[in-house]
Amino acid sequence: MNPNVTRYPAEAIEQAVTEFSTPFFLYEEEQIRANCKRYADAFGPLFPNFTPLFAVKANSNPHVLKILIDEGWGFDCSSKSEVWLANEFDVLAQHTGNYCTDDELRYVLESQNTLLNVDDISMLDTIQGLGVPEYISFRINPGVSSATMESNLLAGPDAKYGLPWEEAIDAYKRAKEMGVQRFGIHMMTGSNVAEEDYFPGVTRKLLEIAGKVKEELGIDFEYINIGGGFNVPYEPDEPTFDLQKIAQDVRTVFDEECPKWNLTEPKLMIEPGRSVTCDAGFLVGSVTVIKDGYKKFVGINASCNAMPRPSIYGAYHHISVLGKDDGETESVNVVGSICENNDQFAMDRMLPQIDVGDTIVIHNCGAHAYTMGHNYNGKFRPAEYLLRSDGSFEQIRRAETTEDLFTTVSPWK
Amino acid sequence: MNPNVTRYPAEAIEQAVTEFSTPFFLYEEEQIRANCKRYADAFGPLFPNFTPLFAVKANSNPHVLKILIDEGWGFDCSSKSEVWLANEFDVLAQHTGNYCTDDELRYVLESQNTLLNVDDISMLDTIQGLGVPEYISFRINPGVSSATMESNLLAGPDAKYGLPWEEAIDAYKRAKEMGVQRFGIHMMTGSNVAEEDYFPGVTRKLLEIAGKVKEELGIDFEYINIGGGFNVPYEPDEPTFDLQKIAQDVRTVFDEECPKWNLTEPKLMIEPGRSVTCDAGFLVGSVTVIKDGYKKFVGINASCNAMPRPSIYGAYHHISVLGKDDGETESVNVVGSICENNDQFAMDRMLPQIDVGDTIVIHNCGAHAYTMGHNYNGKFRPAEYLLRSDGSFEQIRRAETTEDLFTTVSPWK
Repeated sequence: MNPNVTRYPAEAIEQAVTEFSTPFFLYEEEQIRANCKRYADAFGPLFPNFTPLFAVKANSNPHVLKILIDEGWGFDCSSKSEVWLANEFDVLAQHTGNYCTDDELRYVLESQNTLLNVDDISMLDTIQGLGVPEYISFRINPGVSSATMESNLLAGPDAKYGLPWEEAIDAYKRAKEMGVQRFGIHMMTGSNVAEEDYFPGVTRKLLEIAGKVKEELGIDFEYINIGGGFNVPYEPDEPTFDLQKIAQDVRTVFDEECPKWNLTEPKLMIEPGRSVTCDAGFLVGSVTVIKDGYKKFVGINASCNAMPRPSIYGAYHHISVLGKDDGETESVNVVGSICENNDQFAMDRMLPQIDVGDTIVIHNCGAHAYTMGHNYNGKFRPAEYLLRSDGSFEQIRRAETTEDLFTTVSPWK
Repeated sequence: MNPNVTRYPAEAIEQAVTEFSTPFFLYEEEQIRANCKRYADAFGPLFPNFTPLFAVKANSNPHVLKILIDEGWGFDCSSKSEVWLANEFDVLAQHTGNYCTDDELRYVLESQNTLLNVDDISMLDTIQGLGVPEYISFRINPGVSSATMESNLLAGPDAKYGLPWEEAIDAYKRAKEMGVQRFGIHMMTGSNVAEEDYFPGVTRKLLEIAGKVKEELGIDFEYINIGGGFNVPYEPDEPTFDLQKIAQDVRTVFDEECPKWNLTEPKLMIEPGRSVTCDAGFLVGSVTVIKDGYKKFVGINASCNAMPRPSIYGAYHHISVLGKDDGETESVNVVGSICENNDQFAMDRMLPQIDVGDTIVIHNCGAHAYTMGHNYNGKFRPAEYLLRSDGSFEQIRRAETTEDLFTTVSPWK
């Protein structure tokens, strides 16, 4: 059993359910800071100007983002509104769009602290029309991928992302001719990757391409961005990856490849999301109905609209029953109240004997959880709370209400 | 080729894209009314007091709902906010919850025109505590299912819905003892069902159970609700089902089973959603980027957050390129701009030669489209327009903005 998967702040949640209505998300400031520190400790000493960016799509609550900023992180942004957040905090960001509109590109170019990472050579025409930036990076698709799920397929011939690597020299040539002066290079080919040799592999590939570009065009690279995709264990028997080892292996690749290609050492940029906030977040719900149907169904007052990963991917999320960590278990399905049969947080899961009113804690809900939420069946996205390092609670988002669902509708009466 | 799948209001869309920013949803009032009329024509003459309810989860825009009400439809509601809509319009509704909270049950019981359909016998305790209603219906799970996708599995041992049919007599007995005076019975075992003999089959099963309950308890049924699930063809070679035949076959079952079980003929209630609004809605987007990558990717300014069915289910949606219905085709992927590789509206689809700026029309987006939408990657749900029967346009919902995404967040500055 991996304690990173099975642990949860039982005492705090016990307190929180007496103060706040369920369902709600609870995020632990201390755990988020500890996760940041792992990256700082592993990469910081080995890479001067180490530049970690947080993938805002994982958790975009501004109060969570403030913790990241306080830990020295910038933002990895995938849309206009995520760049808006970066501007809100005046923090270093990189925008990696794909197929984005002229309007979005214009906004990125106007955003002082946001670097532009370009997904396709065809976008250079648009950029030229909008105003050439000082800095450009390209997202390279190496034609091979590492991914654990279809939707996380981030490279390879079936992936919609990135510039085929054979076009890299052409792309940088055009950018240089347009007047771009500072350059970066980026690859993001996997998500939730468990293989530790994936990251040194990506680094080598990127430095090789950078080296060839330098050979051809004489340009140096300010940033090399090896992306994110750092694995989070979801199942209790999955190991936590060794970040120190990854950092050291990436360092070794730098030491081999930079001199080989005559590259001035670029700054190392990474963009994790999941591995920074995922295990610091919990979705807390209460048992509303227990049905002894053809199976035993435990209904809770949170639904897949709050945290869609199990409904969309069949993803495993560890579940605890507050105050019932020991004792006999039985096989149950833990379900929400949406009229889709995929609204099940766990199927045939061995859990302690559950009663109506019990508190259910769903683990690993600090990333790609609230941000993936929706309102299907007219359901509300829940409130979010922060458990501060000093043990206090702070509401950082209220639950939605019926009125919220209709604010954009034209008057109908 | 089924013209119901391939047709679209080309002239209106040509006009609309000159007046409104893409992306947007466009719904045709005339087609919605025509779909309602199909039901009225097929069932109306055969069933006195025919009671069609619209599954609000399919399309919950109040302006769309007003058309349904005008056609004489009530609402099938799956949540508190959908019942709130029924109250808003003071229309006959039935609430079918599953695992719903006491708070939601209380709200339903307080709603004058909303009938309560109960998912499990265990909920009767709660209902007794909240105040016994005059009318109760039970949702029966017959232990077998008909469904085209996992998430649409609405009955059978793995489905979380309904009362095992063996418990039906017990359930009605308890309800009668509690003081309930009017009764209904409901079954919803499939979604998007293509087999025409499914509906007479459900009707026979329900009348049999109703007959046995009457035999045992002496109660009659005011409503028999055979659910929804009426198929919509998504692929061009799928046929449109024969509603007249279904209605006649259900009538035949009524004529056989009601006398056999000595049942006073109940009112027939149905609850379609998809088949009423799906083919009346289109998601309209513009081509932003064409990438000649390892494949040809056509990027548009709508993403899977606006209409998630292809990303979640791999669902097929027919796509037209405005003004290019003829001419040579080539294989392309039509993609959105979200950083998930499942954000693809079509993969390896043969479409006419497409240029940047072309208008892309995605068909069958009038149901389970906007209502399933989300904000992942900080993306906005688009505007909705109605094409009125007189040819005029009406904006019925504006597009979301950055501000909308953060209205529920506690102040962070």
